[in-house]
Amino acid sequence: MAMRICFFGDSFVNGCGDPAMLGWVGRVCARQGQGGHDLTLYNLGIRGDTSRDVLARWVAEAESRLKAHPNRRLVFSFGANDAAQNVPRAISLDHTARILRAALAFAPTLMIGPAPIADDDVSDDRVASLCPHMASLCHSLGIAYLPVHARLRQSSAWMEEARAQDGAHPAIGGYTALATLVEDWPHWQAWFQSSPISR
Amino acid sequence: MAMRICFFGDSFVNGCGDPAMLGWVGRVCARQGQGGHDLTLYNLGIRGDTSRDVLARWVAEAESRLKAHPNRRLVFSFGANDAAQNVPRAISLDHTARILRAALAFAPTLMIGPAPIADDDVSDDRVASLCPHMASLCHSLGIAYLPVHARLRQSSAWMEEARAQDGAHPAIGGYTALATLVEDWPHWQAWFQSSPISR
Repeated sequence: MAMRICFFGDSFVNGCGDPAMLGWVGRVCARQGQGGHDLTLYNLGIRGDTSRDVLARWVAEAESRLKAHPNRRLVFSFGANDAAQNVPRAISLDHTARILRAALAFAPTLMIGPAPIADDDVSDDRVASLCPHMASLCHSLGIAYLPVHARLRQSSAWMEEARAQDGAHPAIGGYTALATLVEDWPHWQAWFQSSPISR
Repeated sequence: MAMRICFFGDSFVNGCGDPAMLGWVGRVCARQGQGGHDLTLYNLGIRGDTSRDVLARWVAEAESRLKAHPNRRLVFSFGANDAAQNVPRAISLDHTARILRAALAFAPTLMIGPAPIADDDVSDDRVASLCPHMASLCHSLGIAYLPVHARLRQSSAWMEEARAQDGAHPAIGGYTALATLVEDWPHWQAWFQSSPISR
């Protein structure tokens, strides 16, 4: 059955820095599209967005795009800008909880943890300390959560490309590394295994 | 200087039907990104959107994304759904005028005419008859307008891929054909000639 997915988040969701204009979102969806799935992608990542910004806009933007579609889905990924702006952890988690509780009532939902900030160790330590709390929150809500921070910290493609560009945003190699983490995630795969090929 | 562009419109703007998840928007932006321009792309095409739907949402979505960025840009392309839903021409043009007048006050703006509807000649005749009125409206407002309908009607890639898929949406060949029309358009090229390479 045809599927429509809204991806909400920050510049990493948008794919900023990727000259091919795909980012990890375009890559994981193209993999499914090229495999024969009838998939409509709405990339709603915005540069600089924190959890507060996503909370403020996601419902209106999702309703405009997904309306009553029978196979609508949501994916969220944010947190790096909360850390960079030193938003108190309890506030970030409150915003995240409010987003995810409403999301669950709207459509099947996945959460992907924040990516690292390559050029700012103090902020990146805050990202790292936010991640387990996001994971616990998702667990308590019954939403699958994919941790990517530690693995991308160890990805030379992500870290070196980000440092070679603007300090934050990787290029093709880094986004491909993150796409691979998502493609290998059973909770992402399950969306497509349960959906017969329809193209 | 870094540039941020919001593309507003319908499923053709979204790139529906392209298994590579780029559409014409992704292709024309990737060409610039791969050429060294620091370009952020926000694809805000929504399946089924008419001029009324774009009018209702574009300001909020553009403000969330472009805020006070010094080099923000807007591109609009819609009309096929107005024709398919038999929206009276005067209504479509009124919506379009309201969108474009506000857009001009917000950022440099381009308009790309509607693409053909491959599997419905009655609706497609309405698209064809809407196009010169959209062109006149843009001319009167001082907004550059790119007509693509007649040329895509003659594009075997566009028409054959659309008919082979769902009747409306082409695949890689059709979107590449439309991307080429945009890339060859001096008004699109001018945005990048006046912007020094900054990556």
